Amino acid sequence: MSHYSSFKFMMEPRSVAVVGASDNPKKVGHIILQNFIDMGYAGKIYPVNINSTGRIAGLKSYKSLRDIGESVDFVVIAVPAEVVPSVLDDCGAAKSKSVVVVSGGFAEVGSVELQRQLADKAKKYGFALLGPNCLGVMNMRNHVNTMFLPLYKFDSPKLGGVSFASQSGAVGSTVLDMVSNEGFGIAKFISYGNAVDLDEVDILDYLAHDPDTRVIIFYLEGVKRGREFLEAAKRTTKVKPVVVIKGGMSPAGASAVRSHTASLAGSYQAYEAAFRQSGIVQADSLDDLLDYAKIFETEPLSKGPSVAVITNGGGAGVLATDSIYDNRLVMPELEKETAATLRKAMPPIVNIRLPLDMAGDADDKRFEAALNAIGGDPNVDMIITIALFQTPGADSAVAASIINYKAGITKPLVVVSSGGSYTQAHRRMMESSNVPVYSSPEQAARALAALYKYSKTRGAIRKTK
Amino acid sequence: MSHYSSFKFMMEPRSVAVVGASDNPKKVGHIILQNFIDMGYAGKIYPVNINSTGRIAGLKSYKSLRDIGESVDFVVIAVPAEVVPSVLDDCGAAKSKSVVVVSGGFAEVGSVELQRQLADKAKKYGFALLGPNCLGVMNMRNHVNTMFLPLYKFDSPKLGGVSFASQSGAVGSTVLDMVSNEGFGIAKFISYGNAVDLDEVDILDYLAHDPDTRVIIFYLEGVKRGREFLEAAKRTTKVKPVVVIKGGMSPAGASAVRSHTASLAGSYQAYEAAFRQSGIVQADSLDDLLDYAKIFETEPLSKGPSVAVITNGGGAGVLATDSIYDNRLVMPELEKETAATLRKAMPPIVNIRLPLDMAGDADDKRFEAALNAIGGDPNVDMIITIALFQTPGADSAVAASIINYKAGITKPLVVVSSGGSYTQAHRRMMESSNVPVYSSPEQAARALAALYKYSKTRGAIRKTK
Repeated sequence: MSHYSSFKFMMEPRSVAVVGASDNPKKVGHIILQNFIDMGYAGKIYPVNINSTGRIAGLKSYKSLRDIGESVDFVVIAVPAEVVPSVLDDCGAAKSKSVVVVSGGFAEVGSVELQRQLADKAKKYGFALLGPNCLGVMNMRNHVNTMFLPLYKFDSPKLGGVSFASQSGAVGSTVLDMVSNEGFGIAKFISYGNAVDLDEVDILDYLAHDPDTRVIIFYLEGVKRGREFLEAAKRTTKVKPVVVIKGGMSPAGASAVRSHTASLAGSYQAYEAAFRQSGIVQADSLDDLLDYAKIFETEPLSKGPSVAVITNGGGAGVLATDSIYDNRLVMPELEKETAATLRKAMPPIVNIRLPLDMAGDADDKRFEAALNAIGGDPNVDMIITIALFQTPGADSAVAASIINYKAGITKPLVVVSSGGSYTQAHRRMMESSNVPVYSSPEQAARALAALYKYSKTRGAIRKTK
Repeated sequence: MSHYSSFKFMMEPRSVAVVGASDNPKKVGHIILQNFIDMGYAGKIYPVNINSTGRIAGLKSYKSLRDIGESVDFVVIAVPAEVVPSVLDDCGAAKSKSVVVVSGGFAEVGSVELQRQLADKAKKYGFALLGPNCLGVMNMRNHVNTMFLPLYKFDSPKLGGVSFASQSGAVGSTVLDMVSNEGFGIAKFISYGNAVDLDEVDILDYLAHDPDTRVIIFYLEGVKRGREFLEAAKRTTKVKPVVVIKGGMSPAGASAVRSHTASLAGSYQAYEAAFRQSGIVQADSLDDLLDYAKIFETEPLSKGPSVAVITNGGGAGVLATDSIYDNRLVMPELEKETAATLRKAMPPIVNIRLPLDMAGDADDKRFEAALNAIGGDPNVDMIITIALFQTPGADSAVAASIINYKAGITKPLVVVSSGGSYTQAHRRMMESSNVPVYSSPEQAARALAALYKYSKTRGAIRKTK
């Protein structure tokens, strides 16, 4: 928990200084400063620029941190690489509490010696440093945001419980922008680039203790302190899920990592084993990363591997069944009582078995009856409800029946709804009510498998059946 | 080519009869009839209903096909299962050219004998029969469409070169609705359900010869005539790509298939081997099916397995590199000349190697220079261009530079752009100009691997390097 307070100064600062602040809209320092102003950051803002003539972006500005006359909680540095060491001396002199260096041009382009100076200065002065070569931090709760992206390029995600740490700034900003289309929200974002001081271990420890963070997702390129990272992960996964996508798993990818963030990627086997041992859920793609974040954000742990499929489209039920077995989950037999209840509730053309194909004319009443009967079956641990809104029977009453049922169930339940604008409208209905919705049966099954894996880590699986 | 003309009568009929036509908006026969009227079908339309009193949906109606007095090209039957055999007798008497039975209630619910009557009648009278238990056909060129879905639930795909055959109606309609969000278009759709007469072999033969169809995608549950299907696939894949997703690959999925379309699913190994031998590209998920359709619709065959990655986001380039190797493709070394050209065109911070990370400030000029140099490198067979529009340098000029370059290149090129509304606008720009765009590096690499696989089937790979 060593650097918990460092991150707190970055995420909840009472005052912010932007070094490299500018009135030139093309400068990174301009974008960062302007974003703080435009997003309504409530603390004090100090623009700093060596060429300052007194005002930048309408605020009183300073030539140096030393001129501010108070110790600033959070300093964002956006100046050319070679100037950064001297700005860090200013941070030391001004007793700055935490520092992000967004500037690039260090080890990733061969300037190893220059980068070493950053680490030395942070150590010498005793402040925590994030970066260099990164986007910094974002806190969805208070609009602290050092990302130097024009706001119009970027759909802001909603506030939620998923925190995202990314070694790559581009992967970070892209994923955040993608999240805006998904049904879950973001708590904190940390882009940490070359990680000369604060690294994966510090980030994991901070997010493990951050009360706003319920799920941690991570884009990693390399891990500097392997053993400590594993220990931190073991501690963290005991209280909240950690999903990691690791760049550089192939030899060619590992070589690309060296020129990207100057990290050592390590072997595929070593990482896989380490992730497994520490309870980390590994994502094989960016799609998986988002799909897993979504299920962890809303769903409880599972008590077992049995998945029931309820569908209004037979073929989609078949594909879901295949995917359940592909992902080493199983489909249970229904209890006799459940079957008898369903037989009464379903028309004769419906075969009473799993997957339960309720036919294309299934309406909200049929969905409700199926969910009640199957959700109560002790053989069923998790549920995939496939609601294809192209079918004649499906409309907003079906979405409402799923939302209502979901509000009372303690088993994991996900929905599959795929299609165009009519379907998207119903997806949004369900997602805004904390029902996780997937675009394909395969995605839903993969997400449930990730949830089951983590449920085992947490010891949630029932002992006898 | 036996049933080519049967399908032609369905897809390009001069006259259509809807048996079971109704003024009751809840009836399937009503929806089908109304869709023909509303979508502006140009041929003659005959509503048929045994209880007809002279007019249905404003058109002159008939009690029986026998009363029409001319031989109808295409009869769509939407009446209860037990009445279907007698309607087929009417078809025989009236010399109908082709018949679709959309009604369900046959072998899929145990009514095997009733289903056998359908096959016998089709044989006896010599017309071709599609179904039962299906959605029928859609031809994007002339608005022939027997799908009994309310139009407001369904975004129509645009006209294109991908034809889709689906044993499952729900998978069929869902995929078509999903396609509306993708950059490619549809030529023909065939939903064939229980396949008592026209089956997978006939469909493949028809689509192989259909000049509007450039790519065939298929959702299969079972194959009735295995050997003939393989032969038909071998013939077809010599002229156009065939992508298949097979439902019922797992034992539990196979059991679900029996109660869905009463088909025998067969073993996973047998299907995989058969697909491989016949040059069929297998899709493992609905997502793959769409992703592969997209690349086959626009891209030429590849001459080899080498993929160059050009990116404005380092981490995304790392993930693309990993995925290229995961999918058994390779990343080449650049020729010295290419490297020298790039060195001149790129700023010093850019490492001249693949993946080429052009940094977050890369603009259209940098994209253009990279595409020109790398696209012309003889070591490069295919290109992934990652354009992350959240970055400071990327805007519509970048999209335009990719579109312009794409128009002149004969190597396969795909784009990865992921994100929210700003990105979606640029995706649409590129996709409407025949540039295939994917949401993740992993999807792009999988699609290129499918293209490479099919390129080998077609003998397009160069012999020496």
